[in-house]
Amino acid sequence: MASPQAQALIDLYKNWGAAMAANPSMGIEEIREIFDHWGDVTGEPGGVDYLEVDAAGVPCLWAVPKGCAMDRVLVCTHGGGYAVGSMYSHRKMFGHIAKAVGCRAIILNYRRSPEFPHPAQNEDAVAVYKWLLDQGIKPNHIATTGDSAGGALCTSMVLGARSKGLPLPAAIMPQSPWYDMEAKGATLKSNAAVDALVQEPILQGMVSMFLGEQSKQDPLANPLYADLKGLPPIYIQVGGDETLLDDSLRFVEKAKAAGVDVKCDVYPEMQHVFHFLAGKAPEADKAIKQYADWVKPKLGL
Amino acid sequence: MASPQAQALIDLYKNWGAAMAANPSMGIEEIREIFDHWGDVTGEPGGVDYLEVDAAGVPCLWAVPKGCAMDRVLVCTHGGGYAVGSMYSHRKMFGHIAKAVGCRAIILNYRRSPEFPHPAQNEDAVAVYKWLLDQGIKPNHIATTGDSAGGALCTSMVLGARSKGLPLPAAIMPQSPWYDMEAKGATLKSNAAVDALVQEPILQGMVSMFLGEQSKQDPLANPLYADLKGLPPIYIQVGGDETLLDDSLRFVEKAKAAGVDVKCDVYPEMQHVFHFLAGKAPEADKAIKQYADWVKPKLGL
Repeated sequence: MASPQAQALIDLYKNWGAAMAANPSMGIEEIREIFDHWGDVTGEPGGVDYLEVDAAGVPCLWAVPKGCAMDRVLVCTHGGGYAVGSMYSHRKMFGHIAKAVGCRAIILNYRRSPEFPHPAQNEDAVAVYKWLLDQGIKPNHIATTGDSAGGALCTSMVLGARSKGLPLPAAIMPQSPWYDMEAKGATLKSNAAVDALVQEPILQGMVSMFLGEQSKQDPLANPLYADLKGLPPIYIQVGGDETLLDDSLRFVEKAKAAGVDVKCDVYPEMQHVFHFLAGKAPEADKAIKQYADWVKPKLGL
Repeated sequence: MASPQAQALIDLYKNWGAAMAANPSMGIEEIREIFDHWGDVTGEPGGVDYLEVDAAGVPCLWAVPKGCAMDRVLVCTHGGGYAVGSMYSHRKMFGHIAKAVGCRAIILNYRRSPEFPHPAQNEDAVAVYKWLLDQGIKPNHIATTGDSAGGALCTSMVLGARSKGLPLPAAIMPQSPWYDMEAKGATLKSNAAVDALVQEPILQGMVSMFLGEQSKQDPLANPLYADLKGLPPIYIQVGGDETLLDDSLRFVEKAKAAGVDVKCDVYPEMQHVFHFLAGKAPEADKAIKQYADWVKPKLGL
């Protein structure tokens, strides 16, 4: 049974849904203001410093846990359908992950749609990854992570890096990734009644802002169509009550078929990006500890 | 008329009131969890780094605006009746003030009551002030600021420094200060219907945790009983709808009588510590700009 604390995320999502339903013509700026509060349900990690940096032209936020390995880095791409959310809304969540792993995290404020459609997000992510390599961080000391759209972006970032001939990072850790631009997952319907946030009309709006007239099968926008061969180890975490659950399950099948070392944990009764409950609900803290236990040896920690 | 954005603070306070009314036996840890969300209504200042530091044994958070004067410092004491709130809940609010002034801020996580009653808070504040002097920061390059109980503490910190023979800072900037431990202000009743948060029973509970059996007239706990002669310039900002408005007005009379250069702005229709609306409501941004315009020349900026 879900912890009582996990209810906070359901309440948050339901409040958002009510606010958006009450104002169907809500503009993107108002929707962004709503999603700026995503991190309100996250506990403060504590013992983490935050420093803004310009990384190859992309505004970013370093999260630096006290006493961490400075030469190991998590590249973090926040969620929000490529259109909302920021390095601030996800500061604490990625701060928790960095603290658990014992390394630095760099949280990207990549360009958002609709002002900047695909592939601006992928370009920014690859630019920051390359910037880290240019700073002398070894690729096998880097892991990528991200949630929702950022879960796809932390995957496609590696595909983009590969296409540019860059050495690949040690690992990829998507949370509740949103891969499928065609909205074909069976859980979109079967979990619609229990997912408090992600419903098909919202997704269609996000796809439209992100892709415009571009193909929904572009591998960098939809990694379900990508050649996954040779990708580093991947560990996906996803909630059992998510409409996007099938995005993870189908990606795992594809990755396995491509010979990738891929692992996926489904957390029963958990909502989309339940990791936002870090520091508050045991399910999130447990998941983050599992991420840390899995990735530390891969980063040589 | 108050801006529409200012309603967010009223909503927050009313939600807290409802939560506390629904559970009258709520423990201090639960109340702290509620007040941890104070900063949820504050906009992210942006362009400010945050670094935790141990200052003479007191955990603190540096807020460092990009390009600021590193040798000018605001010493910030958060509010919450000396019992709740933290350097995290007030991070963004003090970040806004530091950014407007163009200097660093050090936000104290002083020991809280009831675990640590008065004068632990004053001791911690004076210790951090002395630590800054020991780091080579000049006293005339320091201003103190704080809200509510922290508004009193940023005042009593200077009284405590004076009693220890330390040189005094350049200025004191309390927001909605809570000075009166005896709850004698006329606005406690006359503004009770419009103040969405601060009511007499809450104050009595805070006094009891803070002072126990100690005197409510101790000048370090209640600066209305302090000898204010020789204090640096003081600029108080307070909301017109506050039950604590009289705390400010009476303090100003006392300070004037003692020959202190004191100024007080009352913001019509504003709630307790409306500065939490920084980055969101024009009233808060205007007040903070007024603080900055006033204090910059005093800090040589």
